[in-house]
Parts: sequence; structure tokens; C-alpha cells
Amino acid sequence: MTTGNAHQFSGPLYYGGDYNPEQWDESVWFEDVALMREAGVNLVTLGVFSWANIEIADGVYEFGWLDRIIELLHANGIGIDLATATASPPAWLLKNHPEMASVTQEGIRLAHGGRQNYCISSPVYKAKSTALAAKLAERYGSHPAIKAWHVNNEYGCHNPMCFCDISAVAWREWLQIKYGTLHSLNFAWGTHFWSQRYHDWSEINPPRQTPMGTSPNPTMMLDFHRFGNHQILELYKSERDAIRASGAKQPITTNFMSMKHFRYLNYFEWAKEVDFVSTDHYLISADPLSHVEMAFEADITRGFAEGKPWLLMEHSTSAVNWQDVNYAKTDGQLFRNSIGHIARGSNGAMFFQWRASISGSEKFHSALVPHAGTNTRNWRTVVELGNKVKRLEAVSGEATKPAKIAVVFDYDSWWALSQRNLPSTDIDYPDLVHEWYAALYDLGARVDFITTGFTREKLEQYELVLLPMTYLLNDADESALIEYAKNGGSLVTSYFTGISDENDHVKLGGYGGRLVRDAYGVFVEEFAPQSPDAQLTLDNGLVASHWQQWATSKDAESVIRFTEGPAEGFVAMAKKWIGRKPSWYLGTRLSPESNVAFFGTVLRELGIETAGGSGVEIIQRGDLTFVIDHNQNTVDWS
Amino acid sequence: MTTGNAHQFSGPLYYGGDYNPEQWDESVWFEDVALMREAGVNLVTLGVFSWANIEIADGVYEFGWLDRIIELLHANGIGIDLATATASPPAWLLKNHPEMASVTQEGIRLAHGGRQNYCISSPVYKAKSTALAAKLAERYGSHPAIKAWHVNNEYGCHNPMCFCDISAVAWREWLQIKYGTLHSLNFAWGTHFWSQRYHDWSEINPPRQTPMGTSPNPTMMLDFHRFGNHQILELYKSERDAIRASGAKQPITTNFMSMKHFRYLNYFEWAKEVDFVSTDHYLISADPLSHVEMAFEADITRGFAEGKPWLLMEHSTSAVNWQDVNYAKTDGQLFRNSIGHIARGSNGAMFFQWRASISGSEKFHSALVPHAGTNTRNWRTVVELGNKVKRLEAVSGEATKPAKIAVVFDYDSWWALSQRNLPSTDIDYPDLVHEWYAALYDLGARVDFITTGFTREKLEQYELVLLPMTYLLNDADESALIEYAKNGGSLVTSYFTGISDENDHVKLGGYGGRLVRDAYGVFVEEFAPQSPDAQLTLDNGLVASHWQQWATSKDAESVIRFTEGPAEGFVAMAKKWIGRKPSWYLGTRLSPESNVAFFGTVLRELGIETAGGSGVEIIQRGDLTFVIDHNQNTVDWS
Amino acid sequence: MTTGNAHQFSGPLYYGGDYNPEQWDESVWFEDVALMREAGVNLVTLGVFSWANIEIADGVYEFGWLDRIIELLHANGIGIDLATATASPPAWLLKNHPEMASVTQEGIRLAHGGRQNYCISSPVYKAKSTALAAKLAERYGSHPAIKAWHVNNEYGCHNPMCFCDISAVAWREWLQIKYGTLHSLNFAWGTHFWSQRYHDWSEINPPRQTPMGTSPNPTMMLDFHRFGNHQILELYKSERDAIRASGAKQPITTNFMSMKHFRYLNYFEWAKEVDFVSTDHYLISADPLSHVEMAFEADITRGFAEGKPWLLMEHSTSAVNWQDVNYAKTDGQLFRNSIGHIARGSNGAMFFQWRASISGSEKFHSALVPHAGTNTRNWRTVVELGNKVKRLEAVSGEATKPAKIAVVFDYDSWWALSQRNLPSTDIDYPDLVHEWYAALYDLGARVDFITTGFTREKLEQYELVLLPMTYLLNDADESALIEYAKNGGSLVTSYFTGISDENDHVKLGGYGGRLVRDAYGVFVEEFAPQSPDAQLTLDNGLVASHWQQWATSKDAESVIRFTEGPAEGFVAMAKKWIGRKPSWYLGTRLSPESNVAFFGTVLRELGIETAGGSGVEIIQRGDLTFVIDHNQNTVDWS
Repeated sequence: MTTGNAHQFSGPLYYGGDYNPEQWDESVWFEDVALMREAGVNLVTLGVFSWANIEIADGVYEFGWLDRIIELLHANGIGIDLATATASPPAWLLKNHPEMASVTQEGIRLAHGGRQNYCISSPVYKAKSTALAAKLAERYGSHPAIKAWHVNNEYGCHNPMCFCDISAVAWREWLQIKYGTLHSLNFAWGTHFWSQRYHDWSEINPPRQTPMGTSPNPTMMLDFHRFGNHQILELYKSERDAIRASGAKQPITTNFMSMKHFRYLNYFEWAKEVDFVSTDHYLISADPLSHVEMAFEADITRGFAEGKPWLLMEHSTSAVNWQDVNYAKTDGQLFRNSIGHIARGSNGAMFFQWRASISGSEKFHSALVPHAGTNTRNWRTVVELGNKVKRLEAVSGEATKPAKIAVVFDYDSWWALSQRNLPSTDIDYPDLVHEWYAALYDLGARVDFITTGFTREKLEQYELVLLPMTYLLNDADESALIEYAKNGGSLVTSYFTGISDENDHVKLGGYGGRLVRDAYGVFVEEFAPQSPDAQLTLDNGLVASHWQQWATSKDAESVIRFTEGPAEGFVAMAKKWIGRKPSWYLGTRLSPESNVAFFGTVLRELGIETAGGSGVEIIQRGDLTFVIDHNQNTVDWS
Repeated sequence: MTTGNAHQFSGPLYYGGDYNPEQWDESVWFEDVALMREAGVNLVTLGVFSWANIEIADGVYEFGWLDRIIELLHANGIGIDLATATASPPAWLLKNHPEMASVTQEGIRLAHGGRQNYCISSPVYKAKSTALAAKLAERYGSHPAIKAWHVNNEYGCHNPMCFCDISAVAWREWLQIKYGTLHSLNFAWGTHFWSQRYHDWSEINPPRQTPMGTSPNPTMMLDFHRFGNHQILELYKSERDAIRASGAKQPITTNFMSMKHFRYLNYFEWAKEVDFVSTDHYLISADPLSHVEMAFEADITRGFAEGKPWLLMEHSTSAVNWQDVNYAKTDGQLFRNSIGHIARGSNGAMFFQWRASISGSEKFHSALVPHAGTNTRNWRTVVELGNKVKRLEAVSGEATKPAKIAVVFDYDSWWALSQRNLPSTDIDYPDLVHEWYAALYDLGARVDFITTGFTREKLEQYELVLLPMTYLLNDADESALIEYAKNGGSLVTSYFTGISDENDHVKLGGYGGRLVRDAYGVFVEEFAPQSPDAQLTLDNGLVASHWQQWATSKDAESVIRFTEGPAEGFVAMAKKWIGRKPSWYLGTRLSPESNVAFFGTVLRELGIETAGGSGVEIIQRGDLTFVIDHNQNTVDWS
Repeated sequence: MTTGNAHQFSGPLYYGGDYNPEQWDESVWFEDVALMREAGVNLVTLGVFSWANIEIADGVYEFGWLDRIIELLHANGIGIDLATATASPPAWLLKNHPEMASVTQEGIRLAHGGRQNYCISSPVYKAKSTALAAKLAERYGSHPAIKAWHVNNEYGCHNPMCFCDISAVAWREWLQIKYGTLHSLNFAWGTHFWSQRYHDWSEINPPRQTPMGTSPNPTMMLDFHRFGNHQILELYKSERDAIRASGAKQPITTNFMSMKHFRYLNYFEWAKEVDFVSTDHYLISADPLSHVEMAFEADITRGFAEGKPWLLMEHSTSAVNWQDVNYAKTDGQLFRNSIGHIARGSNGAMFFQWRASISGSEKFHSALVPHAGTNTRNWRTVVELGNKVKRLEAVSGEATKPAKIAVVFDYDSWWALSQRNLPSTDIDYPDLVHEWYAALYDLGARVDFITTGFTREKLEQYELVLLPMTYLLNDADESALIEYAKNGGSLVTSYFTGISDENDHVKLGGYGGRLVRDAYGVFVEEFAPQSPDAQLTLDNGLVASHWQQWATSKDAESVIRFTEGPAEGFVAMAKKWIGRKPSWYLGTRLSPESNVAFFGTVLRELGIETAGGSGVEIIQRGDLTFVIDHNQNTVDWS
């Protein structure tokens, strides 16, 4: 049972973070709530890692401490986002059920001692986590302090796939449901090659490690990504439904991880199952474009939420502890980060974690209350940010305005392209999508993210639809795109888009299928990937790298050609009026500067308005206009 | 039973490739044969990966589709190189016999899902693969379309060694046969050191992973290479003998992998067991000297075949799919590649594969019929090449003329040098051999490759014999070399040659044994390996790197010394008239340019004729003279 | 039972090395002893790897060969350091007890074939190794040739930790003894976070591999280092006690490995259990400062021995065989190495090994008798060195004079800092300690190494105590340091010192605890680690990198600030008169040149005398003054 994603935020913006009071003597709790009030904290996420402290043996519960902290928070007017405490199973559970531990592709059974160690297909884990969620919902579901339910935590962060024998059984069941017959599976996977044909379902195993220099069948691996996503979503749904069944009425969510390199969960699907979208975001602080990456992730989260408000469930007040060099945030950076998320639709700014741990793996992760105490830059910033967030209350619950440009983001393509045996190991799906986004960011253009499975009507909400390396395109999506373009829409389509169908079967007769070959009229007969170091100039002066192809155009309005490299003289870019407006085909990977030049032309030709740019974000939400200036290191609103 | 390598090619040169029709609807087959005729294809390799489609359960066969495609090919005049279909065991076989799957050195049992997953010592695999070969031979042995038998495929590509318990049993049996007594084994392996002495055969296991920072005993590992080569050869012989036993008369081969970095099989031994030598060759296209590497591999294949014609069973029409960047072939490169092989003795030009797959791991590997169809550069080139091959029919069956220079290539040395605990991790056997070859190639000198175990008579077919890092030299070979030099032969011997005997026992009294110490009179008392970055100049102006040694000469006619580095003033090169003609000792690793200078002098002094060079290959085969010009990117013949 | 480290050396300095005669025909032994006499060898270590040659089956011994070589050596006046032969268990033992083999963190059970393959908690290994030691002691304990007992060899070199199920049992027992209650363990490890709380001892396992992107609990891992050290020390003590119980009177030792990157054994603890300290040292010859590293290791070994003489049990006459490029020693380097060790307290110069092996993993490791024989530079150098050592007999048994400077070296800190999840992956404990040492070496300042657990009285033997990244500091040590400084001592304390207590719990209220915050008055509120490439200038012109912090000083006499980077304007260095003399706090990582400048100032201000420097070592031992000049490549004494 789901409430159908019906939740709308009301009241103030949320400010607070993960609160793990079980790390501290209860005497500290009183200081905690006093400081929370000082900082304006109005919501804490409680109990994320508390399983071993709540259920101390199979079916034996200790709720006393949890009762007490909930009452204390409530008495101080601090709301609670109550976790189901199932993020990390306790040692006793893994000891009783050693088969519950996750197994790597190489066959290594993983151990307790870190976190999140469970097989995502484990019936024991599912039953025990669901039971705990139910228990908590029954006990606290009617408590007025509880504002939301926080199911589990960062699903799939450490255990997105499991290769054990229990997983094998679940995998076969999933495949039987998907394919019905072995004949269909053998066709989809292309098992008639390499003697891979299956004659009985029991012959199929997870894509475990294959001999040196070989890889598992690519469609099998694509399906294994889909299966992993499905299994984890089932775990979420089981907990969620148990909460609902208990009668609890608060909205239910689970925190996504909208970060550039986390590919395992298709959050467009997940978003349909939560009452509101929430996500965690951590800067990769060595990245000089980390502010652009942050904007990207906020925008794609807005995309998951279909434009409705969402919640930044975790970010950091300063340094994290898991990067090579964990840079502290400086110079108003925290204000720009937190308010930047709010501007892009977050209904608050939440952090990991309230008080810095003194022990354990995350003790050097920054917090709202740092090790050095409250006479610190860190704490003063936290208090100041709390005040700022309070002043932004006007935007609470406000949705953001749809953009004129849609970027198609497709997890299936990412999963297919995260494998070996492609034309080049430099084919990097997130890199290209982020490069295009960075160019639009630099131009001050806002975008919405949408995913495949769109209708023509959906596309027609936009003046421009971008297809950066949408490698897999099924017939329906291909048709919708062509119809959209024929009826007045504009497309920008990259190389290596539309190469295969949903089974990763290459479309024949010219790469890119009906879209590229027929609609654009560009005949791509062969790929010519190049070294990342090869700089390739086009005859309009733009600069590219990584990719060329033997492509010709039969009727494009305008064609740009390579002036060097093996595909010299062949089509690098083509502009074609498929319908009443131009569409562009981009057969190479432009440099950052050339992307800006190219997309600048596109926006001008289509007359799409921009605001800000060149390091200045100007964003409207509700009645407020936010100005985040990365050149001056300021953030303001009016 | 073997026919004793008696086969001589007759008829036209072969043109065609692997044909995997089971990937396609039968309707496509009719287009296939029509296109084959258009391209001049006269031979296809059928059934390489068909096991799962032929034997669909243990002992249950489906021959219908195979009957039909054989008839169709025959009806269109296309010959068949029929594979025994044993390259990749089907899933049902691995499920019934999980112990048949290969196990890595770390103990990981590998999974179905890639290809070639079987333990090379598995009795089950041997029995089942032999039975399938027999079955196919019985059914098709008398069919007029069958021109040759293609046993298995690229043996050892992914599973050259197995470390499982079944392998352990076979390994012990092999050792018992080799050594007879444990005493002999303990002596050979030097087990009196490190407390490794064995007191019972059952104590011996494969060289599995040893504690951090240690490696298995090096002679054990050397023997394990020999054992692996032996086990795989036995698999081949078992299939081959079953084909012969069925009464089939066609020549039998298996396709080698003559590539720079594949070291596991001693193809000089294998060549004695095939009716004609066939091999696969794929360019490492990022290598700027890939055309030289290709010539090397063609020449060493000619060496395996002892100068008789052989067959290039696989190469690619354009890009492959397993390198970092898979470059397309450009600019007549395919013509130079294919015809270059023919010039060096191949009796045709065969490819992987006929029609590009639409799914599976190799879908982005180029083919004769590309994804984009026949209105493509790729297809037009294939048709044109077919015509060129047809025009070369005159050389079919013609052997190549022996060269004046022999290069000793020794798999045992390679196996010994592919381990740790050597004076330097930069000791790279194939690198040095290829560097010497590249210099001779640049000078236009032709070479034959021979292997150890030679007689003095064999050596005396040559004016010059090269010993690039022939680390292991047994007594007989050492004697033959010395006698050869004393009786008018010339040698070029590198550093780190003749260091150890066949058990990898270091020869005492001056490195290089009787050859270097006594015949050359060069006393090498200690090695002084250098960083690859250290450039070392010699007093004749040549430039070296990587290697110095404290070497002195007692009676060389001419000595070149290091002018820098720790061995400054010591012998870097020495020229000695061991007999009536000069021999050279080269105690360092020359730069490419210095190698050309050095070998140029050698050739001039010995008066060995050259042809072409500096990027132009001029090669005689039969009545034709081929000119392959890598500067002009042309190939021609007259 | 132990003799309480009472041994004092007497007689001549030792000269010789490991002797593994079982590798050779007995006929060679006669040449061996003749050459030993020629070279002045007076001690050989016999039997290190002889287990498989002594105990040829369980309880079946072959002593004949050992009897004969002992008599032969004795007859030639050559003393014996008799090994207990337990360094590497024989194959039969591992076959009979497969559970005795070590298991990696990933769960791979390691194989025989290298050396030192045993689980350090194996009761079988302990019983069998102890029995063998006893057997040898009984047989040879009263033999006049035996000068010392050499227990095992390089403990922990390849198997410092084991993760098997037998280890798990021992680990739990060790934890129960250490913590008494699970409550204490849960507190120490901080298991209330991440749901790691244990409810039963049986739930605890070794810190095996955890899910991707997670690590085991850091205090658990710290304890696992302590446990490993303890288990191996127990193995040593068991052998040692068996020797004593047999009535043997000779001193007992085991050879440490004092090398920069070997962190697993706390040799300060071990030194209390040996009759004299012995160690092995091998140059990392690619390190341009290898002579400084050698001096460091000799000095720290002197620290283990508390200033008493010790013995360099192994070094190499020339190249080793396990580095990337194994450089030969040149140009008097061997003399400087061997005599440098003697100058710093070694009672001789011993080598691995006497005669170069002809087979096995170490055949390319240099030796006293090289492969090329005695007409070699190597042998002549060995003979010459033997003469030099004989001439140094006057220092035999002499202790070295205590230094004025103590460097605190703390294995617990190293173990805590060798993990993930720290502020930066560039926190490198040995690097910083060696950098400080190198500056003092360059200045000609001598240092003693001491470890934590000191008393104030111990500290007061020194005018200056250095704390380079002493990350863990317990209350007692912290108090002793503060009292020392208040009462006239000087400290130099680095960033990231005193961060945590012995459980790796962060001290709150300003990083560095009472020492930094209260005694120095430096308030460190937040770390700001920087990229290794960031060069950071201070306002006194010194140059730093890697580390900044938001630090302020309330009452320092002198403060140096960062002039760039995010912590610009904050305290980089502070000088404070905690008591009557200045102490320094160093809040960043200085460049080598800046370290020399900084410590030069410190020495001048404190008036600490130096001798030599700038590549020239001037060292006093007994009545001799050694001058080792690395600029002129000479060594001399007077």
C-alpha cells in the first residue's frame, strides 16, 4: 500500500540532521536539545543505525532509551524523522543467519564490522527488517513528535548486488516472471553465441566472475542491474507497507543518493513509491566543478520528484571522511550549498550528523556540533544558517517552475554502458551528461531531467529535449522522439544514442536507428573512437576529442565536418529541420568550451531565455529569486 | 594418431571467416551465402561456439540446423572449416559437473557467462569434448563441403592454468612421470631451501597463492607452465585422434594465437601435432609499431610451420572490441594487413567474423558484413580484398624461402622470466625479442624463428643466430651453439642469456655459462640493473638503458664500454671471433635507434643481404614479390 | 622463563651470515669453511629454513647432516647462531593440518610454496614449533660451537595477521582478557554507532572484508594489530622458554625487521623478551635517502635495545631480489653500510646469506660468495670488510652514549593511522617521523628513540622530546609530557598529535587534548588537510604542504601564520615557554629544507651540540669516533 506520492510539505523548512544519541551518555542529551533550539533545529532523523540497540536479540526489544529521547525531543519542540533502524543488521542476526551476508562477484562472503551487510534477496533480512519497521510504527505511529518515516538508509550504497546462492534463486524467479519462457530469455541475451544457451532455468546463475579476459553476457548483466534495483525496491516497499499497515499516517520516505557516480538504483522508479523524495548529497571536493555537480544533483532530484518539493536529507557542514583529501568547507560555501539546494526545491537542509562521533568510522566526518565544541567557526555557521533557513520559510511547500529544456537521463543506458566490450573504455555515460549540463549551467539555462518511457505529450512540455548518449532506446521512445521533432520539437542528440533496443540488440542499417538514420538523415556506418588525448578540430572551429565516426548526411540543412583524424571530412555535427524547428546531431564529444559555444547557439536559435550563468545562479522558487554567485562567493534572495 | 603434419595446401587461397549462423533466423542465411559469393568467400569456419546448440542435453543432439547450413554452403560452392564446437562448454554441462569449472590461483571457482570456462585437466571436459568431436566427424567426415577440421578455438586464451583439486591430481601424475622420484623433483626445484622439501607426492599442490610478499617456488612455476601447455595439448590431441578414428580424411588444425603477450602455449610443440598451422592475429592498434608486431607474428608462425604455408584463421576487418580504444582500420590498412600475412606464408586471409553480432560480448567487433549493411566502406573493402586475394592464387601452397638469420625463441625462458624475484621487474622477454626484430625489420633483413632443442646442423642452415635473453640454456643447446660458432657461425647473444639450465639452476663461475664465459671470454661477475629512465651511453656513442653488469673480457677482438653509470668502464659489448667469423655479445639493452645501428653493422660485416627496410617490406613468396610500403600506405606485388 | 635481557656481548665483533648448507653437496662444505676462514667469518646462522630437512615426518628426525656441519664449523673455529628452524613449516605439516595455513582478510586460504605460511594463532603450529626448538636445544644446547639461539626468522614478515576461524577463537579469548565485559568492549570500540553492538562474545569475528566502501571498526582494527603482535610474541616466547627449559645457556634472540614500512610488531615490547636485540636491514635502494633511512633504523634498533649493543643479523653484500630494480651496491657502499651499523651499536655485521643459491626464490639475492665465485669484486670486498670488522674489535660490547634528544615512536599510533576514514589519505606516520629524523641527521644531531608508556623521569633524561604525529596519547603519557615541559623540558609537537586516547576516542574541546589546548594554549578547532601538491608558505618564509588547521593561540610567545590557503592567517607554528624552556607546536608538514631550518633553530635555542651533518656522520662508540662521509663515499674511524 502506498499513499501514491501524495504528500505536500507544509509548515517551516526543515533544519537539522541525523541524530545518533545512543553514542552518548543520556546526560549529553540535555545539552543536545538546548543546542538544537539555539540553532533552530526543527527536525532530526532518529535511529538510522539503532537496530542493535533496539532489538538486542531475536525478538527481544529495548525501547526505553528510544522512548526517553523521543519524549525529550518532543518536549523541546523538535520534530522527528523516525528511521526504521534497518540500515545495518546487528551482529547477532548475521551470526544466526550467516547466509544473510552479502557475497561478491568473486564469491567472497562479506563480514560484519562495517555497515549494510546483507544480501538484498535474503528472505531473513526482509522478514526481520519488515518486522522491526512494523514494531516501531506500532509503538510510535501515533506520537505527535513523529513528522515522517525514514525507511532504512542509503539503500544500495555498499551492497547493490549480491552473487550468493540465495540471490541465484531470486534471480531465476525474477527472470521467469520477466521472460516467461527460456526461449525469450535466450533471444534477449543472445545466448546462441558463445555457447551460452540455457536449456533449463536452473542453469542460470548470477553473473559471477568469468575466466580471465572474458565478461558475463552484457544483457545478462544489464538485467542483473535491473534485478538488483528491483530487489532493493521490494525491501523498501515491504518496510513501507508495514508502516502503513500499522495505521501510521505520517509521510514515508527513504533517502536517495543523488551523486554523480552512484548508478545502481533507478530513482525515477523509486520516486513513485515514496510520499516525498529525499536525498543525500556530498560534494566531491577535489572537483573544481563541484558546485555544478551539486546543481545537477539537485535538479535531477527535482526530476525524480516531478517538480514537487523534496528534502535534502543529508549533506555536510564541512569535511567528510571518505575522500582522498577531505577538504573543509570555507568562505560561505556551506550557505551556498544549503541554500542552493533549497532554491532548487529542497524543503529544508538536513545534515549528517548532529554531533561529531568520538569513535568509529565516521568520527572525522563533520557535524553540526564539532569535536571542538561551540566556540567554533563551525557552530557559529550552523547557527547562522539556521537563521537563514528560517527566513526562507516563504518557499516551504512551493514547487519549482518547469524548465523549457528536458534532459533525458536513462539508468538502463548507464547500466549497459558501465560494462566492457564497448568501442572504447572512455565511453562514460555520467561524464557526457554532466558535461552537457555544465555548458547549460554556464549559459544560465535551466533544465528538467526526465527519463525514458516518456510519451510524446510529455516531451511536448519542452521546447528542447536533449539525448546525451541515450544508448538504449526502445521502439516506443524512438517513435515518441521522432513524432515530437516532426511536430515542432527540437532535439539535441549525441553520438552513441539509440544504438540498441531494450535488450541491447544493435539496430541495423546505420547506427542510431530510425531516429538518427531516418529522422536526422545521418548515416553512421562505423565508429572511430579516438584516444582521450587526441584533439580533433571541426570546420566551424569547435574542438572535440574521444570520438569520430564515418557518418554522412543526406539532407541536413547544415553540416560540420572533422578537419583532422581518420574521419576527416565526415560529419561531426548536423542541423536538420525534422519538423518546423531545427534539431542537432552531435557526432563527437566537444570540449567544455565548445559545448558552451554549441549550446549557446542552440539556445539563441530557439530563443530560450536564460538567467545568470558564468558562475552566477539565478533561480526562482515561489516568490523568491535566489542569486548564488560563485565568483563572489555569496548567496542572496529577494 | 596424427598425419604427421603432412598437409600441403592446394587450390586457391582461402578467403572467409568464422560463421556463426545460429545467431540469426534461417532467412538471413540466404542473404549470407549470396553476399559470400559476391565477396569471393570460399571458406567459412562453422560451429566454433555451437556446443549448446548441437548437444542440448547430455547425449541429446540437434543436428538439423547444422545439416541445413552445411548443405546451403555446399550448394553455393563455399567450403567449410568445421569446428568441433568444443570451445565453450554449455551451461548444462557445468551445472551437471560444477567441478569442471576453472579455479584461479586465489581459489575462486569461475562461472559460466563468459566463454571457455573449463579446467584444463578435467576428465569430464576431455571425455565430453572428445565425444562431440567424434560425433561431428562421424556425421560430416565424408561430406564434400568439409575442407578442414578446426579443433576447439584459441586454446588457453582464458583458462591457461587451473588450480583446482582435480588439477592437483593431474599435476602430481605429470610430475611423477617427469621426475620419477621425489628426490629428483626436490633437486630440480631446489626445495632444500625455504623448507619446501617434499616427502610424499601427495604434499604437492598447484602453485596457489602464497603469503603476502612471497611467490611460489620458481621452478615449480616453470613446471606448472609446462604442465599447462601439456594438458591443453592433450585435450587437442584427444579431439584430433577422435576425428581421425572416425575415418575423416580432411586436414586437422587448431587456431593458435600468435600475439606478443600470449605466452602460455609452446606453439613450436603444438605445430608438430597439426596438419597445418593456423593462427589468429589481432593488432594492438595503440602500438605505433603494430605493423612490425604483425610481421613478427607472421614470421614466428612461419617458424612454427617450419617454413611451410600456414593459414591466418582470424584477423579483423576493422576495430576489435577488447582494447582500451578500439581503433578502426583506415587507409588501406586492411589490405596491407591481410596481404602482408599472405606474403609471409599464409594461405589465405580469414576473419572473425562473417556478420557482426547484434548482441553478446562481441557485438562491437568488426566483421565482413557490418551492422550498417553493405552500402559501407567496410563491405566495399571486403569485396575488393576478396578480388585481390583471388589474384594472388599463384602463391597458394608455396613455401617461403628460408632466411639467413635465425632468432631463437624459447617459451621456457619466457615462462621463467615471467615471474618475480629477478634482478629487475623490467626484464621483459617479449620486449627484447621484439626490439631486436624491429631493428632487423627496419634494416630489411628477413629472419626465421627457431626454438631451443636445436642441433648444430639446424643452426648451420643460418649465417647468423640471435639469442635475445635466452635465459635458460641446457647443456646440449649450449654445446650446439658453441660448436656452431667455432665452425664458422656467427652469434649475437644478449645479456641474461644462458643464465640457468633447464631447471632454472644458475650456472656458476661467471654468468652465461660456457657460452659467455668460455666461448666469448666475457666474465660477467655481477648484474647492475638500472631504472628504465636511466639513459646509458656507450663509448661508441650507442645509447642503452635498463641494464649494466660488471663484465670484463679476456680476449675479445673489440670491446665497447659504458661511459656512465655504476658499471662505467666495464664491457657493454664485445666482438669475438669464436671461430672463423665474428660473434657479438650485447651486455645491455640498446635503444631502438642504437639497435638499428648495431645490427646494421652486424649485417654489413657478415655481408647478409637485405631488401626494403625503413618501413617498406619487400618479400618474396613463390614467384611473387610483395612490396608493402608503410610510408605510402600501399601494398603491391609483381 | 627469560634471562631478563641480561646478555652483554663479549669477544670479537661478529662477522658472517645465514648459512644454508642443505642446499649443497657436502663436498661444497669444505670449501665453505675454508672461505669463511679467509674472510674472517666467526659466526654463521644455521638452520633457518631447515625444518623440512630435520623433521622429515611428524616426529621423525634426521640430524645427521646437522651434526656433521656443526662439527665441521666447530673444527674450523666458526661459531654458530643456531636457528630453531621453525620459520617455514614443511609441506607434510600443512598437509596433515590444512587448517594451519593462513587465511587472508578476503578469506583466501594460502598455500605452501612460498614461505612462512602458518596461522599465527594455530595451536598445532605452536606445539610443533615449540617441540622442534626443544629438540634442537636438547641436542645441541651444550655444544661449544653454539654461541646463540636464533628463534624462528623475521616473525610476521608474510603472515602478520590471520583471519581464519581458529584465529577467531583466539581473538575472542584475547578480547575477553583485555576487556572483561562486553560492555567495556562495546564502549571502547564505539559499537553503539552503525549497529555494531555485540551482545555475545561469539558474535565477534576477525575484521574480515566488509562491504564495498566500508571498513571494519577502527578500534577493532587497532586491537587486531595489538592482538597480532601479541600472538606472534607468544609464539616466540614459547620457543624461547622451551630452549631455556632444556638447560641451554646461550643467549636467545630473534631477528627483527627494522625497516621503514614494516609496522606489524611492536619491537619495544619484543626487546624485553630477548637476550639481545638483533635485526635485519635492507636498503630500499631506489630511495635517494637510503643512507638516512639506514641510520634511522640503526638508531631505532638501539632504542629497542635501550642503548645496549645489538646485532645486525642480516643485511646484503650487494643487490637484493625483491625490489623493482635491484641495484648493486657500489663504491664502498657496503663498507659504509656495515660499519655504519656497528658505529650505531651493532656488535657485528651479518648477512643473508653465505653462498648465493643456485635455485629457488632468492637465487638472485647477493651473498658473501657470489655465483661468479671468488675472483670477483664481491668476494674481495667481503674479505676486506672482514678485515675492517676485525680491526674494530675494540668497540665490541660497548654501549652507545645516550643522546640529548628523544623521538617518541608509537606503534599504536601507527596502527591507528594505517587505516581509512582519516582526514586525509596522505597522513603517513612513518613519512613524518622519517622527515623529522632526516632534518636532524642533516644537522648532525643524534637522537634516541623511545616509545609511549614513558615516565616523567624517563623524559627528563633528555633536553628535547619530539612528538611527530603521536596520534594516540593516553592520560598518563599526556600528563608526563606536560609535567616534563613544565619542569624544564622542551617539546616539539606536530599536528595530529594527541588527538585520541588509547581507544581511539577523540579528545573533545580542541584537538590535541590537554597537551595542545592547555599546555601549549593552542586551540585547534578544525582540520583543513590539503592536497600534497599544494605548497603553503608561512610568514617566516618556511614552506609546508599537506596540512592546515583552524588554530589560534591564546598566549604563545611567538606565532607563525599561514600566508595562503584556506587557513591563511591562522597559526601554523607556535613557540611557548610551558616551563622554563621553549616548546614548539608545528601545525603543518614542512618541506625537507624547512624542517632543517626549523630544527636548526630549535637546536640553537636549546644549545644542543651537533657533530657532522650535511651528509657526514660523526659517531662515537666506546673509544672510537667513526666518520662516515656520504659526500666522499668514505668511512673511517680513529
